Parts: sequence; structure tokens; C-alpha cells
Amino acid sequence: MLRTHTCGELRITDIGNHITLCGWAQRSRDLGGMTFIDLRDRYGITQLAFNMEENPILCDQARKIGREFVLQIVGVVRERSSKNIKIETGEIEIVCSEIKILNTSLTPPFTIEDETDGGDELRMKYRYLDLRRNTVRKNLQLRHKMAQQTRSYLDSKEFIEVETPVLIKSTPEGARDFVVPSRMNPGEFYALPQSPQTFKQLLMVSGFDRYYQIVKCFRDEDLRADRQPEFTQIDCEMSFVEQEDILNMFEGLVKHLFATIKGIDIENMPRMTYADAMKYYGCDKPDTRFEMKFVELNDVLKNKGFKVFDDAELVVGINAKGCSEYTRKQLDELTEFVKKPQIGATGLVYAKVNLDGTIKSSVDKFYDADALKKWQDKFDAKPGDLILILAGNADKTRKALSELRLEMGTRLGFREQNKFSCLWVLDFPLLEFNEEENRYFAMHHPFTSPKPEDVSLLETNLGAVRANAYDMVINGVEVGGGSVRIFNKDLQKKMFSVLGFTDEEAQNQFGFLMNAFEFGAPPHAGVAFGFDRLCSLFGGENSIRDFIAFPKNNSGRDVMIDAPSSIDKKQLDELSIALK
Amino acid sequence: MLRTHTCGELRITDIGNHITLCGWAQRSRDLGGMTFIDLRDRYGITQLAFNMEENPILCDQARKIGREFVLQIVGVVRERSSKNIKIETGEIEIVCSEIKILNTSLTPPFTIEDETDGGDELRMKYRYLDLRRNTVRKNLQLRHKMAQQTRSYLDSKEFIEVETPVLIKSTPEGARDFVVPSRMNPGEFYALPQSPQTFKQLLMVSGFDRYYQIVKCFRDEDLRADRQPEFTQIDCEMSFVEQEDILNMFEGLVKHLFATIKGIDIENMPRMTYADAMKYYGCDKPDTRFEMKFVELNDVLKNKGFKVFDDAELVVGINAKGCSEYTRKQLDELTEFVKKPQIGATGLVYAKVNLDGTIKSSVDKFYDADALKKWQDKFDAKPGDLILILAGNADKTRKALSELRLEMGTRLGFREQNKFSCLWVLDFPLLEFNEEENRYFAMHHPFTSPKPEDVSLLETNLGAVRANAYDMVINGVEVGGGSVRIFNKDLQKKMFSVLGFTDEEAQNQFGFLMNAFEFGAPPHAGVAFGFDRLCSLFGGENSIRDFIAFPKNNSGRDVMIDAPSSIDKKQLDELSIALK
Repeated sequence: MLRTHTCGELRITDIGNHITLCGWAQRSRDLGGMTFIDLRDRYGITQLAFNMEENPILCDQARKIGREFVLQIVGVVRERSSKNIKIETGEIEIVCSEIKILNTSLTPPFTIEDETDGGDELRMKYRYLDLRRNTVRKNLQLRHKMAQQTRSYLDSKEFIEVETPVLIKSTPEGARDFVVPSRMNPGEFYALPQSPQTFKQLLMVSGFDRYYQIVKCFRDEDLRADRQPEFTQIDCEMSFVEQEDILNMFEGLVKHLFATIKGIDIENMPRMTYADAMKYYGCDKPDTRFEMKFVELNDVLKNKGFKVFDDAELVVGINAKGCSEYTRKQLDELTEFVKKPQIGATGLVYAKVNLDGTIKSSVDKFYDADALKKWQDKFDAKPGDLILILAGNADKTRKALSELRLEMGTRLGFREQNKFSCLWVLDFPLLEFNEEENRYFAMHHPFTSPKPEDVSLLETNLGAVRANAYDMVINGVEVGGGSVRIFNKDLQKKMFSVLGFTDEEAQNQFGFLMNAFEFGAPPHAGVAFGFDRLCSLFGGENSIRDFIAFPKNNSGRDVMIDAPSSIDKKQLDELSIALK
Repeated sequence: MLRTHTCGELRITDIGNHITLCGWAQRSRDLGGMTFIDLRDRYGITQLAFNMEENPILCDQARKIGREFVLQIVGVVRERSSKNIKIETGEIEIVCSEIKILNTSLTPPFTIEDETDGGDELRMKYRYLDLRRNTVRKNLQLRHKMAQQTRSYLDSKEFIEVETPVLIKSTPEGARDFVVPSRMNPGEFYALPQSPQTFKQLLMVSGFDRYYQIVKCFRDEDLRADRQPEFTQIDCEMSFVEQEDILNMFEGLVKHLFATIKGIDIENMPRMTYADAMKYYGCDKPDTRFEMKFVELNDVLKNKGFKVFDDAELVVGINAKGCSEYTRKQLDELTEFVKKPQIGATGLVYAKVNLDGTIKSSVDKFYDADALKKWQDKFDAKPGDLILILAGNADKTRKALSELRLEMGTRLGFREQNKFSCLWVLDFPLLEFNEEENRYFAMHHPFTSPKPEDVSLLETNLGAVRANAYDMVINGVEVGGGSVRIFNKDLQKKMFSVLGFTDEEAQNQFGFLMNAFEFGAPPHAGVAFGFDRLCSLFGGENSIRDFIAFPKNNSGRDVMIDAPSSIDKKQLDELSIALK
């Protein structure tokens, strides 16, 4: 080893010891008689001291060392005169007797500090320097621990980790595949997996009983902020279980992660049906760090002569507790917020329950004091509360109110990143109708089983069929989801036909799975968690980028290595393809 | 849960308990009054008993259950009258009170037994059934344990697991890349990584200090038996280390795996230079489970009038101890063996040291008793030994003798699969000359550092430069290898120029790495183990296929899912490519 200790290791108890350290010169301070260098490695920072009087040659050498030079130093540990209690090595420093410059460095294009002066683009281009920053490195260390603890929990529950293939078969159902031309099979292509779904189901047919894998998946979709073409899943499947068993097992995983990584004891993990989530929160992944449930008002507010409400399919509101003192300006801001195109409401109605008990609404013209009293009752509003109401098409209005609820939650400080609220959302619809293609698509995927009591609806009312499907939602973010699978060949066939597959198409794309179901498939169910997202949630950040070592930008480019890139004509020829 | 216990769990202490089991009907035996079914799951086999007198309806139902039906049964544990000590549940059986057929099964195309009647092709097509067989499932369970223990060791040594990207940049150096057309960047392609080499080096530049990953890699090469287009590596890198540190660290890993997985204590891990490996074993991955070292004979055997030896660049032999009684037929077999085209020798000379001390050679005409005595001394041959000699071009002869040595080792029973001999081979040549392309290629890869004392030879004698590169060899199989890396930009540039890259090509392909080296790259070194191979070695089998859940065949096809396959024209259009 080129060192005896790391830069995070030495303490007051090491005083007098002769040591060798390696690391990067974080910064140096020249105080005339003394020169100090902060030497940094992954483990910490140690102060090096050079005395002009005692060793002028060495001190002179030290003064010439630039930021990010790589050093090997030899010296003796001594107690610092002015201690730094903020860092663990802050009580000591090293009196150096030798410096060896292992490598020099150009001046980095941005500062290697927790708060850097580098913009996103520069940080991505020099990602290897960005990763030197404590904040980014700690995110990846958190990710490492998350993976360790995930495996530790699943190992203890007798799950077997199995690697499924990356070069698989393209299927048109679902998102767009990345494909890989096969040189040995000209004109044919592999696809990269969007998930190991069919393979994990085959492993259940094989009797593996409990499977998991922390696995890279791929989707060639148009990228939004925070969506990566390659992403990582915690992928799991179990046999001989019912939905309840899966919920308990993976509730256990999430609790284990919170306990071991964050030291947080998640006591309960409430369950909510999809129908209730939509009714009370207007979305299928409610942020339950705060209440502020929707109150539907059609019975109270309609037919009072206010055309906007009278014409609306749904009138629905929330109670922003303690906001009755909102100014005109603040209320105007909220109105502007809901009218933004991505929110899509046409206007906002409010009613303030003043501290003196009177109520003042923006539609006083249509509603007298008695009517407003009824509003107040509906919301159980107290003096000081602010009622906010939207109206219009039911789906759109719920969606808009959901956004307004989150906005109010943020304004009221209910959405702190270090408070965690977990929730299972259950009983998702099996299918959703796609207007554009004029057919139903699987909401989860084509292998999800309908609720047994809803199977007959497959003949009569496709939109009403509920699935044995579940999502785990933490702080309004869907971190995982899964379903009880179909394990009966006939039901699977029925499902493909509902999705508009001909028998031939179904056989061609998923024949191997349906064939496998002929040979004794056990009841099984599974779940997958978005690992990048889970890590960023635990790290208390919104962006997943800084929890991925080498992420891609919104055009799917790695700007550091400059990929994708053009390839030689010879390569194209070998693959029997041409550019168009 | 659909069960209270697994099929491997119940013991004599459970007698009288009411239990529910799930599993597959392995086989049933109808003995008139009694019917027995062996119920199988991943954990074991439990015998179910049905009594015609006590419960004729249920017994009748049991008789109709076919092989591989999926059952849920309810019953009571009782002691068996005739115990089966071969299985852990062999002291008990279940008196069933209910059977539920969870799923039926067609008759499998081959028997689900340790020794199956299914050929390779059938087993691969129905891989999900093949995986039900104990032997295959146990291989994958072994793999799971190997991964666990690898992580456990590396975690304990402060290695951080970092996921590197799968969609990277194509580089013409090395093996052929699989490429992925980018829809969002028309005309451009990602490549799948042949290894995370450059990324792990960048992580060292980032100060990650110790990195590991168990990671899928990809190579579009013509497949031989036992080479897969996608394979798995244990990939590691360390900073601020010298070669000795790496050797010790990963010797430690291999010892840890042997201790925890096999219960074998590997005491020492000898080291051998590449030069010695070639001289004494004729190959760079000698099987050291047995000695039988090469003895070079130019000084003793040449210039005695035997033209074959006189004309030969090298005369070299081995001593097959205790084989002097080999018959004419056996010796002819050996001669035929070495003359096979893939071995390539022109003939075999032998000398038997008979039990009475006399020596009989196949070239007595040219060598008298005194000469033969010298042979005997050279080999330290005792009465009963058989000396085998090849001659010709040095490289080819060594290669042929290496094969003959392995053949003799096999014949003599020295190559048992449960005996393990580990070895580091050191000081590989940095470069090897490729006749076809008339230039030097990196033997390991272009980032491997030359030995400091050989750097000057880069100007004068490229073929003589030794690298700080090492391979771990177990039982004659190269299971891993690595090198101390170049971390100096100028030396890296020099290396690219030696490999025939123009500055522009080097910058275009590896510019990001050379730029990174401008900003303070630490000394670093690493290693990668072939995980599939390591697992098969621990499993005592030659083929890696049965240690991969879903392998591909020699044409790179997954015959189960039928991939690769053709894709829609719409997909091709979106990707801006066409078939040729």
C-alpha cells in the first residue's frame, strides 16, 4: 500500500505516530511562516502542516502544490493548536517530512466543494471531477448501502438472486425497446429488457419460489427530466402467495431500509384503494405527508344559480387550514397557478372562514351566509381556514385540484424531505382505454390478474375490471408496484385477446410463456421497485441524476464519453444494416 | 401464504401437526390399498400418503394426478413405516385430507430428474423445465451464494459497489462490440460494454478508492462452446496500491470463497512468472494440480545423428511417472493424440524406464544405453516411469506438449474436479504481435502499465516489454486477471501510439480518459474475474451453461424465447436504419 492510513482515520490517540497518507490537495493556506494543505480522500480530510523555519525546502515545495494534485506524504501526527470540531480529524495535523507528487492536476473547471460553481452541463462533462464532491459521492455511497440492505433483507427471506438475460426479444407491447442487431443472425435483432418480467415468471414456473435481482432495465422513451434510458430495478417474484403476503413481505423490505439506512421506524403502512386515492387526492400516488383531503360539493353548491358550478360535472375543494389571512395577491397567485396550461383549471373559487367566524367567498353574489355555513360544515372548516374550490370535468378537475393540494402542502411546509409517509395503493383498474388507438391497454402489464370477482366483467365492462395490482407510494412518489400474475393459460389467452392480440401475435410474442403455463405454473405474484428513485428519496433529493454514477442527459447522451456516436461502415456491414 | 411449510421442512418432531403444503407432483406410486405422491418444491420432497380404505374418494383423486401437476394439500404429519434415510424429510409422510389441484401439466418433454433423458436442445427449448431439475437449480443456488460471499468479502474491505452504464461508446480496439442504434440521435449508436474498464478507472480518478461490481459484459465474438455473448464479471479496482496489494486482496477473496462455499482451506497461492509458465508448462494457465514439468533436452539429445531432434528448434519432454508398463496400443494412442491437427506434433518419442532399471526407447537406433541414462537423469526418472518427448518449432512444441501433459494428467487421475490448485501468473508481456495486421496489440488492454524497469524497451524492443499484469489460474483455467494501470497521461499517449493509434484516433476514442488523467489521477490497479467460469469451477463442472439461468446457444440464440428475431419496419424507420 502507498499509505498507512486514510485521510479520515487519524485521531488524537495517534499523536506521535509516523504515518504515510495519500490523497488530493483540497486547498492550501500560506500563512507566511506556516503552510497548510488539506489532504482529501474518500474517507475524509487531514491537515498537513509545513514550517518555513524548520524545513524551508519542503515548505517551499508545499507552496507550489496546486489544487487537486495527488500527493503521498510522510510525517508525524501532532495535536493541532486550533482545533476544527467540524471534522473528525480536526484535533490533529501532520507535520510532514516528505512530499511526493504522485500526479499533477490542471485547475479543475469548477470547484470541488459541496456547493460548487459548476453548472449542470460542465458537471456532466467532467463527471469524474463532480464525483469527487462529497455530496455526490455520499449519494452513491447511500446507493451502495441501499443495495446491501436490500440484498441482506431478501437473502434472509430465502430469495435467490438470479441474473436474467440482457439480450432478449423485442415485443411491441408497452414502451419502445432498444434493439441490438445480431451479426450472426442477419436481419434479426435482440432487444434490451424493459424489465425481466417474463423471465421472473418463468423462474416461478421453474420452482425457484422466491427470486430477486437488482437489475438494469432499458426504455427508449422520450426523456423527461429525471427519466433515464437505462435505470435500475429491485425486481422480485414469489410463488404460492396471495396479495396479502406480497404486501407484508415488501412492506418489510421498505421498513428494513428505513430502519437500517435512515434510522427511522416506519410504524404503519396504510392501504388505500385506487378508487379512494382518486376520490380523496385526485391521483393514484397521493402525498400522504399531509391530509387536506378532497371534499365533493355537488350536492351543496350546485343549482344555486352560479353557472360555473351548475354546468360542472364535479365541484370539489380542499381546506387549507390556517390560510384565511391570505392576501389578494396570494389568492391571485393560486388562481394563476391553477390556470397554467399544465394544470388546466379555468378558475379558482375561495371562501375564507375569518377569525371572527364570518365567511367571505369569491362568489358571495350566489351564496348567502346560510349557504356558506353549509360549505364550512362540509369541510369542517374552523375560523382561520381557507376553502379552495375547483369545478368542471370530473377527471380534469381532480387532476388540477391534486396539483393545487400539493402546492398548498409545499406552501404550508408539509412536504419536508426528511419526513416520510408510505402507502400501498390497491385495486388498480386492469385496463385503460387509449383514445388514439381506440383500444384497451393493460394498465400494469398483460400478465396482471383481474380480481377473481371481476373476471366476469371481462365480457361486459372492460373499464370496470379491477386488478390484483398494487403500488407503493412514498411522499407522493410511486417507488414500486406489482401484481398477482395470471398463471392459467386460458386466462392469459383471454387477456391477450382483450388487448387486441390475434392468437398468432400472442403466440409469436409470448408463446414461450403460454407454453410454460401448460406445464404446471404455480400461483405467483411480484413487485419491482425503481431503485434510482428510491435512493434519491432516501437521499432527500428530487433528482435521480446524482444517485447514478454516470447518467445521461435529456437527449440520451453521455456528454462525458460522447456517446452515442457514429460507427465504422465496416461495423454496419458486418451487422447487415445501413443508415437511412 | 398458500402453505404452512415447505416440502423440505417437516421432520419427526412435527408428527401430529396439521399442515398445508404446495408443490409439484414428482412421481406417484399406486400400491393398491395405498397411493403415494412425492411432492416437490425448491426446498425438498415430502411423501404424501392416501389410503383407499380410509378415504376412497380422495385416494381416487390422487391416482389421477399426473407428473408435474401443481398441488396444494392439507394433512397431518405421521411417522413413516419404511423410512428413507436419503432425504431429510424421509422419516415422515403426510396423511392427506384435502387435495387442491392448483394447476395441471402436460407430460414434460423430458424427465425432471437429476439424470434426465432430455438432450441439450430440448433442455434449452424448455429451459423453465430444465431449471426444475435439482442439479441445475443447485448450480444457480451456488451462483447466488458465490455472489453473496463475493459481496460480503468486498464490503468488509470497504469496496463500494457502483453501477456503470450499459449504453456506452463503441471502440474498435479489442473484441467486436454489440451496438444499439439511438433513435434520438439518428445515425449514432451506443455500444454495450465489453467491460467497465474505462469507467472503473474514472471512478479511481474520482477518488472512489475501492470499487467493485458484479456486472454483465458483452462481446460479439464467434462463439465457441462455453463462450456466451453476455457474461458476468466480478469487476474491481483500487487506488494507492501496488501489484502486491492487489494480489493479496484478491487472493483473500478467492480463499474466502473456497472457505465459505466449499469448506476448503486454500493455504498458499503460489506465484509463477509468465516466462516460467511457458517454459515449464507450455502455457500461461498451467494446471498445477499435478507437477509433470517440462524438461528441455537440446543439450542432451541433439547432435546424435537423429535428424528429427537435430533439426528441431526445441526438444522437450515430460516424465509420466509409473507409466513404463504402457502397452504398444496405449503408446500408439498417445502418438495419435499428439498428431491430431489441433495438437499439431509430428510424432512422439518415448523412453520406458523398466522396473529392472533398463531403458527402452523408440529411438534406440540413435541413442545407446549411456545416452539413455542421461535422459533418465535429466528427468529424474525412476524405474517404472515413462518419458515422453516432442520436438520441433519451440512455440508449437511447447503447446503440443502442454496438451499431452494435460492428457497424461487426466489419464493418471490427477485432475479430479474436487481438488483445487490456485496460482498467480505474473509478468505477462505487455504487447503481442499480430501477423495478420502487422502490428502490436495490447495483450491485456491498452491501459495496462509496463514494468517500470522495462519502459525504456518501448523504444527498442516492444516484444520484450513486460507488463504489471497478472492472471489467477485455478486448475488450469484462467478465472481472473488484471493489471496495474497507466495513470500518467504521457505514458498513456505513448501506449496508444505504440498500438498504432494516431493522436486523433486516441483522442476520439479515449479522449475522456486522457483528459481525466490531466486532473490528478491516482496510481491504481484492478482485476476482473469471470463469474460464470468461477461458478462452474466451484460447481465441479466444465460447462458454464448450467450456471447461467437462460444461456444462449452457439449461434447466440435463446431458443426458448426465440431471440434474436425480426422487428417491425416501423421500428427500423424510427431508428433511421435499414436492413441490407
